[in-house]
Amino acid sequence: MIFSVDKQSAVSIQEQLRTKLVAAILNGQLMPGTSLPSTRKLSGDLEVSRTTVVLVYERLVEDGFLVSQDRSGFRVNPDNHPAHSGEAVSENVLENVAGPVWEARFRKQPGLQRNISKPLNWQEYRFPFVYGQPDPSLFPLPAWRECSRQAMSELAMRDWSSDAIVQDDPYLVQEIGTKLLPKRGIFAAEDEILITSGAQNALYLIATQLIGAGTRVGVEDPGYPDARNIFEIHGADLCSLPLDSEGAVMTGEAETCQYLFLTPSHHSPTTVSMSEERRAAFLALASRRDQILIEDDYESETNYLGTPVPAMKAEDQEGRVIYVGSLSKSMFPGLRLGYIVADRRLIQELRAFRRLMLRHAPSNNQRTTSLFIAQGYHDTYIRKLNRIYKERREIMGDCLARYLPGMSRDSSFGGTSFWLQGPSGLDTEELAGQALEAGIVIEPGAPHFREPEKNRHFFRLGFSSIPTDRIEEGVKLLAGLIQSD
Amino acid sequence: MIFSVDKQSAVSIQEQLRTKLVAAILNGQLMPGTSLPSTRKLSGDLEVSRTTVVLVYERLVEDGFLVSQDRSGFRVNPDNHPAHSGEAVSENVLENVAGPVWEARFRKQPGLQRNISKPLNWQEYRFPFVYGQPDPSLFPLPAWRECSRQAMSELAMRDWSSDAIVQDDPYLVQEIGTKLLPKRGIFAAEDEILITSGAQNALYLIATQLIGAGTRVGVEDPGYPDARNIFEIHGADLCSLPLDSEGAVMTGEAETCQYLFLTPSHHSPTTVSMSEERRAAFLALASRRDQILIEDDYESETNYLGTPVPAMKAEDQEGRVIYVGSLSKSMFPGLRLGYIVADRRLIQELRAFRRLMLRHAPSNNQRTTSLFIAQGYHDTYIRKLNRIYKERREIMGDCLARYLPGMSRDSSFGGTSFWLQGPSGLDTEELAGQALEAGIVIEPGAPHFREPEKNRHFFRLGFSSIPTDRIEEGVKLLAGLIQSD
Repeated sequence: MIFSVDKQSAVSIQEQLRTKLVAAILNGQLMPGTSLPSTRKLSGDLEVSRTTVVLVYERLVEDGFLVSQDRSGFRVNPDNHPAHSGEAVSENVLENVAGPVWEARFRKQPGLQRNISKPLNWQEYRFPFVYGQPDPSLFPLPAWRECSRQAMSELAMRDWSSDAIVQDDPYLVQEIGTKLLPKRGIFAAEDEILITSGAQNALYLIATQLIGAGTRVGVEDPGYPDARNIFEIHGADLCSLPLDSEGAVMTGEAETCQYLFLTPSHHSPTTVSMSEERRAAFLALASRRDQILIEDDYESETNYLGTPVPAMKAEDQEGRVIYVGSLSKSMFPGLRLGYIVADRRLIQELRAFRRLMLRHAPSNNQRTTSLFIAQGYHDTYIRKLNRIYKERREIMGDCLARYLPGMSRDSSFGGTSFWLQGPSGLDTEELAGQALEAGIVIEPGAPHFREPEKNRHFFRLGFSSIPTDRIEEGVKLLAGLIQSD
Repeated sequence: MIFSVDKQSAVSIQEQLRTKLVAAILNGQLMPGTSLPSTRKLSGDLEVSRTTVVLVYERLVEDGFLVSQDRSGFRVNPDNHPAHSGEAVSENVLENVAGPVWEARFRKQPGLQRNISKPLNWQEYRFPFVYGQPDPSLFPLPAWRECSRQAMSELAMRDWSSDAIVQDDPYLVQEIGTKLLPKRGIFAAEDEILITSGAQNALYLIATQLIGAGTRVGVEDPGYPDARNIFEIHGADLCSLPLDSEGAVMTGEAETCQYLFLTPSHHSPTTVSMSEERRAAFLALASRRDQILIEDDYESETNYLGTPVPAMKAEDQEGRVIYVGSLSKSMFPGLRLGYIVADRRLIQELRAFRRLMLRHAPSNNQRTTSLFIAQGYHDTYIRKLNRIYKERREIMGDCLARYLPGMSRDSSFGGTSFWLQGPSGLDTEELAGQALEAGIVIEPGAPHFREPEKNRHFFRLGFSSIPTDRIEEGVKLLAGLIQSD
């Protein structure tokens, strides 16, 4: 806790100190329950009178920010929840402050949410078992350049240069509807498809329109942290769906949910594919309990091992499944293009929300992508990736069996990663740090769990970006680190 | 009202009819107070028994959707507000319905908000006095293609192809900070700048983080409808700031606001520039009342007439101004790139929200745009546009003085449009329809007002896309239509 006070300021020292403490409590620097320095220590450190500190502390107790305890001084009120207390700040705390106290104005603090982190410079490491980042050297740049050139012809540009306001590029909608969705068993009309700024934006739009304070939403646990965070920031009352070898498990709790978020094609992050029986059971439950299923069909194009299983949306008789797909995943993540397939009434309202939120995804990228799909480059690229992924997956599977036996489970799907369970004492956050020093990028698994502290021994190894000939060396090195731990 | 019932369905006719009526009421097809067809008429039209209709109507009265009136039948409950009633639907309405009743799940209905509309095919009209759409034939396509080619080099692509998650392209941030902002008198550090998916997305992000139910937000009236709609959908309690010749007026009501949304460089839509005295007064008020000012500096680059006046943000001593800029406006609207300049603590939280909402604007467009600015193409393009706009504005000013005298006021700024006040009996919605038939695109002014019905005689004429040599003919034709009205 580094505070300073400005003795030349027109604002009194007492006010300065109070403002800073309130900000630290509200922004979570001082967590609920934390003990504050004694009045003697703080007054000494800041070179201000002890009476000033005592007065500030007592005022903060009065305002509910602190609690006092006989003998042991002051602590941050344990009932104070920083992420939601923005509105509880009493007016007078803000008086006499020169600049705005931003922390007191924040309605939510998404910055405090837990999430997956990866080094931004992962490309500089020798063994990047990073997840979700395709190898840029595999992308067919000449094809993309060619499509981009076509999209920038004077004639095409007349089409897409103006503000389309609520419309999507009809060419891209058509390509998605006729080329991508049928592979997933989905046949949708144009007004049942909405282009989004990535699958993430799709989930955010859906949550904005359908999920509010207290809405019961079931999420897989472990599961996709971004989805959980999006639902949570909209006020959802989350309910955990555990996992077994057939995918998400239906529990009594799941029955009480209004919405269920599922990754049936291959579960994120464990890569388990949901069995057909389980899918049918979820659909039947949804119908019985008037539930809506949000199906995130991420990476569905990387099913190079198993027989293709259609999306749950394909079996959706009653329009209860909201399907989310991604183009960023199969092209390049920086592109930020995704789509929603759902009932046209829902699409219509989501489109109106998207108008307010960002109008539409950039028109030039929509057009270039539609040409990339129409001219077959997308298909060719996916086939190429899958050939490489299959090779890498086999080598990696062998290496894991040899160097880290029993830590991973086989998947029937393919995908781009392995999910590993280390020995129960392993702390993969620590391991990730050590690995980085050895040039190895791995992803700690804890952020995928609702109770991260209990699950620090899980981790994920991606193989979309590690060169095939470095896999063995990387896994071997990593195994050495785990065993020496 | 076109209803049909499916007599083969497993769902009873009564249930089908009830579901459809509820949906129509909730989605606003049947507005509060509307009379319903008599039970005799509806049963005849649908070929169902009159008892069925009576039972359905009576059940809907019980559920609060309808009210009955002696002799005059049934009306939609006037207390039923479709945009907010999503949550008020009682559980039992949803029983026994096969598909989900989406309308009952919608938390908001942005589709019902009033907004500016323009024909999407405006480029096909001979006299497109459309606003906010630059002439695609003026855009320096070869320069953009060249930058795009550079951004797609293998080396550059390694930079931007991966998912940047929360980061913006540092090159673009640098160009905005060193080339665009200084022209507006703003000197910002990199962590005080956030790239958004257009200025619209900037406003949405700001509202998401700072504005909630009951937050008092002052908006100019007339003013930018999208901003008003964004604040409103977040629950803001809006307060109108009237306009005079010095810009937005400070009223007693404005003093009670926590946030003020302003367009000081030239007011949207009237094009009045705010006087320096008025700016200083707003800043002083903000400091005194701990207000935050949201400054939309749209089209600031089109100030080709007056002496450049810095943005209000440039005078902001206390970090109370949130500045919103647009690149889509000065490049092409389909690009969807904008930016926010604000206190770094706010930027940090907005960045976290943006991560949830859409991660970041597409990396390829960020890089291409940064090259376009860095290599001077942006500047050259703006200078070219301003030369053409100046010429068009002079001709247009002369034509308006000749054919539609007294309807527009002169602006000291330049910009891309004229704001006109027609005779009080004029209905510009009707006029716009007639004009379209004569090949003229104009924009009715009513949606800019909080009380649109009282302001149907205002309209806007843009000149960014109409060829210079068609201005006189277009204005003359339009004047003929107004006079013959």
